[in-house]
Amino acid sequence: RERVRQFIESRRFQQAIIGVILINAATLGVETSPSAVARYGGMLHVVDHVALYVFVAELLAKAYVYRLRFLRDPWNVFDAVIIGISFLPTASGLSVLRALRVLRTLRLISVVPSLRRVVSALLNAVPGMASIVILLGLVLYVAAVMGTKLYGAAAPEYFGDLPKSLFSLFQVMTGDAWSDIARPLMDMYSSAWLYFVVFVLICTFVVLNLFIAVVVSAMEE
Amino acid sequence: RERVRQFIESRRFQQAIIGVILINAATLGVETSPSAVARYGGMLHVVDHVALYVFVAELLAKAYVYRLRFLRDPWNVFDAVIIGISFLPTASGLSVLRALRVLRTLRLISVVPSLRRVVSALLNAVPGMASIVILLGLVLYVAAVMGTKLYGAAAPEYFGDLPKSLFSLFQVMTGDAWSDIARPLMDMYSSAWLYFVVFVLICTFVVLNLFIAVVVSAMEE
Amino acid sequence: RERVRQFIESRRFQQAIIGVILINAATLGVETSPSAVARYGGMLHVVDHVALYVFVAELLAKAYVYRLRFLRDPWNVFDAVIIGISFLPTASGLSVLRALRVLRTLRLISVVPSLRRVVSALLNAVPGMASIVILLGLVLYVAAVMGTKLYGAAAPEYFGDLPKSLFSLFQVMTGDAWSDIARPLMDMYSSAWLYFVVFVLICTFVVLNLFIAVVVSAMEE
Amino acid sequence: RERVRQFIESRRFQQAIIGVILINAATLGVETSPSAVARYGGMLHVVDHVALYVFVAELLAKAYVYRLRFLRDPWNVFDAVIIGISFLPTASGLSVLRALRVLRTLRLISVVPSLRRVVSALLNAVPGMASIVILLGLVLYVAAVMGTKLYGAAAPEYFGDLPKSLFSLFQVMTGDAWSDIARPLMDMYSSAWLYFVVFVLICTFVVLNLFIAVVVSAMEE
Ligand code: NA
Ligand code: NA
Repeated sequence: RERVRQFIESRRFQQAIIGVILINAATLGVETSPSAVARYGGMLHVVDHVALYVFVAELLAKAYVYRLRFLRDPWNVFDAVIIGISFLPTASGLSVLRALRVLRTLRLISVVPSLRRVVSALLNAVPGMASIVILLGLVLYVAAVMGTKLYGAAAPEYFGDLPKSLFSLFQVMTGDAWSDIARPLMDMYSSAWLYFVVFVLICTFVVLNLFIAVVVSAMEE
Repeated sequence: RERVRQFIESRRFQQAIIGVILINAATLGVETSPSAVARYGGMLHVVDHVALYVFVAELLAKAYVYRLRFLRDPWNVFDAVIIGISFLPTASGLSVLRALRVLRTLRLISVVPSLRRVVSALLNAVPGMASIVILLGLVLYVAAVMGTKLYGAAAPEYFGDLPKSLFSLFQVMTGDAWSDIARPLMDMYSSAWLYFVVFVLICTFVVLNLFIAVVVSAMEE
Repeated sequence: RERVRQFIESRRFQQAIIGVILINAATLGVETSPSAVARYGGMLHVVDHVALYVFVAELLAKAYVYRLRFLRDPWNVFDAVIIGISFLPTASGLSVLRALRVLRTLRLISVVPSLRRVVSALLNAVPGMASIVILLGLVLYVAAVMGTKLYGAAAPEYFGDLPKSLFSLFQVMTGDAWSDIARPLMDMYSSAWLYFVVFVLICTFVVLNLFIAVVVSAMEE
Repeated sequence: RERVRQFIESRRFQQAIIGVILINAATLGVETSPSAVARYGGMLHVVDHVALYVFVAELLAKAYVYRLRFLRDPWNVFDAVIIGISFLPTASGLSVLRALRVLRTLRLISVVPSLRRVVSALLNAVPGMASIVILLGLVLYVAAVMGTKLYGAAAPEYFGDLPKSLFSLFQVMTGDAWSDIARPLMDMYSSAWLYFVVFVLICTFVVLNLFIAVVVSAMEE
C-alpha cells in the first residue's frame, strides 16, 4: 500500500493524469463534429475508453490506499460521481447522459492544485451568501406567483404558469431584455410598470448587497 | 400574559409559524395552476383560510402580550399590513388584491432571524444612499423632461409623455436595449447620440459611486 | 451689503429658493403635456417667468455681496450658466434651447448642501480616473478606425463611418445588444468574432480596473 | 551615443513623438472617409509615411543607444511589433493588414508615462486572475461541448459546432440577449432552462469572485 501511495502521490503521476484529462477533453470536443467522427470515430472511441479506464484505475488505487479516508475527501466523491456518470446506461436513448460525459473534463479542478484552491475559496463564500440568496429566492417566488395571477392570461408565453414566470423573472433579474417583457404588458395594464420597476429595483438592491457581503467577508480574511 | 409570552416566544411555536408560512406559500403557488384549482380547489381554500386564521391569532396574541410595545416593533407593523391586505374586499373585482395575498409569504422575513438581520442590514444602508439616489432621480427627471420635449413627437412610444420618458430612461439606466431606443432617433436627429451617451455616462458614473458609497460604509462597520 | 449677505445666507431664504426650484421643476414637467399647456398655459408661463426673475435676483444679490469671490466659487458659475441658457434667443426655432430650460432644476444641486457634497465627491474622483478613461478612449478610437475599414462596406449602419463606428463600439462597451452587431458580420467575415471578443474582453478588463481604482482611492480617504 | 541618448530622452523629443502619434492618429481616422481620401488622399499618404519614418528612426536611435538593453524593455518590443506591421506586404489584398496600421496609435501608451503606468498596473493584475480565468474557460469549454451535443441539431445557428457554441456561451456570459437563445430551445426541450440557468449562475458567481480577487489584491498593495 505504501508503494502505491507514493506512486499516486508522485508529481509525475499527477501530471500524467492531467495529460489524460486534457487529451480526453480534446477528443470529447472533436467528437462534436460529425465529419471528424465519420473519419476518426474509431480512434476517438478508443482514446475515450482508455481515458475512462485510467480514471477508474486511479480511483480504485486511491480507494485502496486511503480506504475510509477516501470518502471523507469531497474531491474524491466529486471524481467518483463524474466518472460514474459514464457507466449509466446510454443505450436507453438518453443523449443527455452521453453529453454529460464531458463533465469528466471538470476533473481538472480536482487534480490541479491552483484550480482546487480557487473553487474551494468560491465554495467557502457560499455560507456567507446563503441568507441573501434565500431572500432573493423568496422575492423571486412571491413576484412569480403575483406575475402569474396578474399577467398569466395577458402574456401566456412569459407568465402562463409558475415555472414560466420564475424563468421570466430570472431573466429580468439578469437584466436581459426585461423591457421586451414589460412594454407589451404596459400597453394592456397601465400599472404594469410598477410591478417591473419595483422588482428591478429590489433585485438590483439585494444583488448589490449580496456583492458587498462577499467583498467584505473576503476582506476580513 | 406571561404564559402566552413564553408560548409565542418558544422556538417550537416559531418553527410552527414558519411551517404554516411555507405550506401557505406552496398552496398559493399551486393556486396559480387552473387545473390544480379545478381538482384541489376546496382543499387549497381551506389551507389558505386556516393559515390566515393562524397568522391573525399570532398577531392578536402578540398584541395582547406586548401591548404598546407591539406597535413600536416595525416588523409587527409589517406583519399586520401584509395580513390586513387579505381582509380587503376582493369581491369588487380587484384581482390585484387577490394577487397581493402572496405577499404573506414575505412574513418569512420577519420570522426567520437570519433573513430579518439581512433585511435590517439592507435597510440600514438606505440613509447613506439617500443623497445619491435623489441625485439619480433628479438626473432622471431633468432628462425625461428634455426627452419629452425633444423626441416626444418623433418617438411617441418612448418619449410621448413624461411618464413614458421616465420609464424609457429607467430602462436606459438599467442598460437594457438602450440602443433600440437611440438608433431610430439618431436617424431623425443627428445629435440624438449626444443625449443618450451623456445620459448613459452620467448614470453609469453616479451608479458606480452609489455602489462605492455603500461598499465604503459597509467596510466602516 | 452686510444685511443683504445675512439675508441670502439665511436658512429661510435658501429654503425659499429650494421651494421656487421645486415649483419650477413641476411646471416645467407639466409643460410637457400639450393638454395641460392648452388649459393652464398662461399660468405655467407666469410661474416660469417669476422663477426665472427670482433666480436672476438671487444671482445679482450674490454678485453684489461677494463681488470677485462670486466668480471663484464654481457653483455660482454653474448657476449663472444654467440661468443664462434661458436668455438665449429661442425665437430662432431652436427647440433644443427651450428644452434646456429644464436644466434649471439642476440648481437643486448647488442649493441643497447634501447634494452639493455628493457631486463634489463625484467630481473629486475624476482626476484619479483620467488615465484609465483616456486609455478607454484610445482603445475605442483604434477599434473604431479598424472597424470602419474592415466592416464599413459590409455593415454600413453600424460601421459606415467613424462616428457610427464610435457609437456602435460605445454600445458594445455598455454590453447592449452587441451580439446583434457581431452575428451578421460573422456570417460574412468568419474572423469577425475575434474583433468583438477581443474588444469586449479589453473593455471589460479596463472598466473593471477603472472601477477598482475608484474604490481604492475612495477607501484611502 | 551619449548625445543621442540625451536627445531621445529629452522631454521635447518625447513631446514631439506624442505630437507625431496624435497627428498620425488623426490622419488614419480621416482616411476612413472615402470623400476625404478623394480630396486629400495625397497629403494623408505623405503624413502617414513621414510618421512611419519618424517612428522607425526613433526605434533605430533607441536600439543604437541602448543596444541589448533595448530588447529587455517590453515596451520597445511592443513598439517594434506595432511598427513592423506597417511593413508587411499589403499588396496581397489583405485589407486587414492595412486596418492594423491604426494600432500605431497605441504607441501613445508606451510614450505617455501615466498611460504606461496604468497599463502596467492592469497587466500586473493578470497573474492573480489566471486561475479564475482558466476556471471560467474550463466551464465555457465543458458547457460548449454539452451545448453542441444537446442543441446542435435544434439550434444550428447558436450550437451548430463547437466554435459557434463557444461564441454563444461567451455571449450568454456577457449577459447579452441570452434569453433570445434560451427561449426557442425551451420550446423544444423543456429542460433547456436548467442548462442556461445553471450556466448563468455559475458564470455570474465565478466572475463575481474574479472581481473580488482583483479588488482584494489591489487593496493589499
Ligand atoms: Na440586453
Ligand atoms: Na444587458
